Amino acid sequence: MQNRQFILKSRPEYLAGPENFDLKISPVLPLKQGEARVAVEMVALSAWQGMRTKDFKNFIRPFDLGELIDCDVFGKIIETKCSDLPEGVSVVGRLGWQDYAVIKPEQVSIVSKEFSAEEWLTALSSPGQTPYLALSQVARPMPGETLVVSSAAGAIGVYTVQLGLLSGMRVIGIAGGSRKTEFVTTKLGAHACVDYKSKSFKADLANACHDGANIYFDLVGGETADAVSENLAKNAKILMVGRVSANNSNDPEWDPANMRHVWSQEATIYAFSRYSYKNLFPSVNAKIGRLLKQKLLKMHNTNFSGFENTPSILNQMLSGQHVGKVLIKYADTKGNRI
Amino acid sequence: MQNRQFILKSRPEYLAGPENFDLKISPVLPLKQGEARVAVEMVALSAWQGMRTKDFKNFIRPFDLGELIDCDVFGKIIETKCSDLPEGVSVVGRLGWQDYAVIKPEQVSIVSKEFSAEEWLTALSSPGQTPYLALSQVARPMPGETLVVSSAAGAIGVYTVQLGLLSGMRVIGIAGGSRKTEFVTTKLGAHACVDYKSKSFKADLANACHDGANIYFDLVGGETADAVSENLAKNAKILMVGRVSANNSNDPEWDPANMRHVWSQEATIYAFSRYSYKNLFPSVNAKIGRLLKQKLLKMHNTNFSGFENTPSILNQMLSGQHVGKVLIKYADTKGNRI
Repeated sequence: MQNRQFILKSRPEYLAGPENFDLKISPVLPLKQGEARVAVEMVALSAWQGMRTKDFKNFIRPFDLGELIDCDVFGKIIETKCSDLPEGVSVVGRLGWQDYAVIKPEQVSIVSKEFSAEEWLTALSSPGQTPYLALSQVARPMPGETLVVSSAAGAIGVYTVQLGLLSGMRVIGIAGGSRKTEFVTTKLGAHACVDYKSKSFKADLANACHDGANIYFDLVGGETADAVSENLAKNAKILMVGRVSANNSNDPEWDPANMRHVWSQEATIYAFSRYSYKNLFPSVNAKIGRLLKQKLLKMHNTNFSGFENTPSILNQMLSGQHVGKVLIKYADTKGNRI
Repeated sequence: MQNRQFILKSRPEYLAGPENFDLKISPVLPLKQGEARVAVEMVALSAWQGMRTKDFKNFIRPFDLGELIDCDVFGKIIETKCSDLPEGVSVVGRLGWQDYAVIKPEQVSIVSKEFSAEEWLTALSSPGQTPYLALSQVARPMPGETLVVSSAAGAIGVYTVQLGLLSGMRVIGIAGGSRKTEFVTTKLGAHACVDYKSKSFKADLANACHDGANIYFDLVGGETADAVSENLAKNAKILMVGRVSANNSNDPEWDPANMRHVWSQEATIYAFSRYSYKNLFPSVNAKIGRLLKQKLLKMHNTNFSGFENTPSILNQMLSGQHVGKVLIKYADTKGNRI
């Protein structure tokens, strides 16, 4: 039995793509005592995977050249030498772009069959947990106030918009292109969605935010964030959750930031990381799980299949071609690798 | 009896100076019912006066051309047609660069003789209240943690450094030139003070902040703020209190802001305005007054005299020539205008 992996071959100038990864095929090794083998069934792509192919440090170190590309996966234990990791159970963990992973208990969470692989990798993982935690632990939504969400059609944005609407807020999305803005209003139900690629972006945004943005959930930074800062309500809360704009640029240090408006509106900018709330993951998943069961929260994913397609799908995702969370199946329903 | 006033003649390119102000002399008018006349005895210069000579809006509108330049003053009521404003009492209020002001009760606060004019215009006004409120209401100092204060030798900085030290914090000042940095360490007692004009500024700052800055009290913004952002401790709190750097520039909108470090350290940036805490002014002054009486908090002012010197002294202050609060006497001890 052989294992396929994608490892980092070179660092991208702009966005990572197939040319930056090497396919590495190696024999599967026997397990040691205390280990188990996971067959990866589905992987989730994330913006941070692209960021880590570059050589700058944010909250997390870059991938080394030659290193397996890490990512969140859903899989099944197919062989075990560890009593805490029984054969046949499903797990989620950060096990990377590969067919098989050798794991120890602390690397994975055993997950129930109550939810699907897709749910475990989306609503019950970063995409759902991030806005749930940022809104519940920091910003606290308020009915009648306005929430602005950038990257609103993206993996995290789709849950942020939904949670804002469930909270009774007026929700304004920001997304690129009419396909996405229509998705955000018609499928997610946002009150408005503004196209940041449009020439009338600033005017459209000002129009949509007529009472000012009380909470800005920012996944992008850069010029988009600056445009929103001109439309802040007094005492606005800015959740700085992602920095796609800086991550995609060649100068990750600097954001131009329109601090004049932040200052005059007495806004607060909270840099937010989900990882600082790990102790809350179980209770947050209980709440998100309930919303899923009640069909108040819905998944919006873009699904692919085939291990070998992973690098090109990452490039598509980083260039903003897909809506919702991007998932790739690595095994068919019979467990055969694809 | 005549009244001298300085009014705005033209907007400065860079820093306001004598060429931007006109001296206007007009007869003192009879009082109407409900009014009183204040003889201005001392005025306090502030960075916001310079900012308001330019035509951009922050939290406060610019002065109009031809408008009396406003500022905080200490004075005495010398004539009254208002029972709430008895003759002979001392008042503070924003009455501007002039010899005499006609006032209504809501424009001033009657102040006790318990404190001096200098104290009422400094520790018990913006210079003392601003850091007391920002630290007590937002950042909360913690013994053993590190406080970084920019513009540490300035009007507000001198009280911020002292309050940080009284709170048991390690206090690092930032100031321009050896005269000021020495003042901050030897007179104020800061643990270190770094010269932002020095070529070794970044290295000196990193050295002084070896455990990271837990609270950054920022009066300056711009490149100084960015340098501090590289030295933030995890979960640092940034109090954005002033933006001298942007106010003095020709592009007040934009600050370059090193958001990468703010993000990776999960810092929070609080835009702070004292005016949002007006209801707390009396209780804050009671606490600051106690610290003054106990000689735990000391004044550090630069004193001048003579109404006609006001515009040139403002220019000196804006160009960073003075230490502590800049005060100008407009009347001698016998009450004669000077």
